[in-house]
Amino acid sequence: MSMTKNNENRIILPEPTIRRLPWYLSYVRMLDNMQVEYVSSTQISNELNVQSSQIAKDLSFLNIRGKTRIGYEVKSLVTVLEDFLGFNRHHNAVVIGTGSLGTALMQDHGLENYGLNIVAGFDVRSEVIGKEIGGVPVYDIDQLADWRQKNDVSIAILTVPVERAQETADLAIASGMTALWNFTPYRIKVSDDVIIANTSIYAHLAIIYNRMHGNG
Amino acid sequence: MSMTKNNENRIILPEPTIRRLPWYLSYVRMLDNMQVEYVSSTQISNELNVQSSQIAKDLSFLNIRGKTRIGYEVKSLVTVLEDFLGFNRHHNAVVIGTGSLGTALMQDHGLENYGLNIVAGFDVRSEVIGKEIGGVPVYDIDQLADWRQKNDVSIAILTVPVERAQETADLAIASGMTALWNFTPYRIKVSDDVIIANTSIYAHLAIIYNRMHGNG
Repeated sequence: MSMTKNNENRIILPEPTIRRLPWYLSYVRMLDNMQVEYVSSTQISNELNVQSSQIAKDLSFLNIRGKTRIGYEVKSLVTVLEDFLGFNRHHNAVVIGTGSLGTALMQDHGLENYGLNIVAGFDVRSEVIGKEIGGVPVYDIDQLADWRQKNDVSIAILTVPVERAQETADLAIASGMTALWNFTPYRIKVSDDVIIANTSIYAHLAIIYNRMHGNG
Repeated sequence: MSMTKNNENRIILPEPTIRRLPWYLSYVRMLDNMQVEYVSSTQISNELNVQSSQIAKDLSFLNIRGKTRIGYEVKSLVTVLEDFLGFNRHHNAVVIGTGSLGTALMQDHGLENYGLNIVAGFDVRSEVIGKEIGGVPVYDIDQLADWRQKNDVSIAILTVPVERAQETADLAIASGMTALWNFTPYRIKVSDDVIIANTSIYAHLAIIYNRMHGNG
């Protein structure tokens, strides 16, 4: 698939589709490891509990066609999905807040398999500033704006305490970051031109508790 | 608020509502720390970018009423939200897969503020079995079923490599776990009586990339 990406020619997918594509990718990567050559949407459907018509629709956004009665070529599907999802391009990011979650993300080389390179950490605590975590240097948050001027990084991962979420987001944006990955439970306000993804792990806990006990 | 929770008398909330409630909680906890006494739904609305009618509707599931022109008492709203979300009750959990993410969750005492106590880790790697992480013991995954018989734990947090996701989920359920918190990008299949929450951090990455570049 040739990648043509610019602001005039972009496809903004519906979020539910984007959420399902990584499921397909995980599955076909597994098939590829098992040397399986072809997979049908029916097989994917049975394995992942997603309706086969939905899968066909989701994959129609991609530049790939299955063969009648044989299905999709597994290797091509892996490549096309990785290309499409951006997982095989490099994206530099910084972690702001190097507590336990921030540290874990800096040490988790699994993220590199999804195209994310964490190139710096920032913190307010003097005991971590100047050190390295997982080979990545940690700087004083006061240096963020200066550092950003010299480094082409657009993604800031926010793993600060919740009461610092908004002010840290404001600082990151003022420093030139254009995409925020918010791991705090705080609903950060940003202007429309800033990209924000909320990974609200506490909300997922609440869903588990609610399904276990109900509430009221 | 009196809590009546049993299978005959449970309220299963819509997921979008459950996702918003922790935002409100983070905000009113912050106000409480700042000694603010009352908050109106208009204030919450302005702060969190959620429509004020939506907030009133969400909070109507809770046993609390605002006063005309004054709003909700902050301290009561904190308590009622914590009660309702289950964050001030103890829920025991195990972590299966003590890699970097599993380790981070075991060390992150922030989860305790949300009612989650991680009481054991399980792994296949001999170099971690028998050790402790953040004061929590790590056992051989082969011991899970035996261990579960002696310990009242229903929640398993899955932080295993993606290719182990389904088999580990099956093992956890066979051992008596009834709720899975899945951090792998794999779409795990479970029967309807098992609770599953997917925290698909890679899907969020894909959303950021797509919004940054578009695809296609």
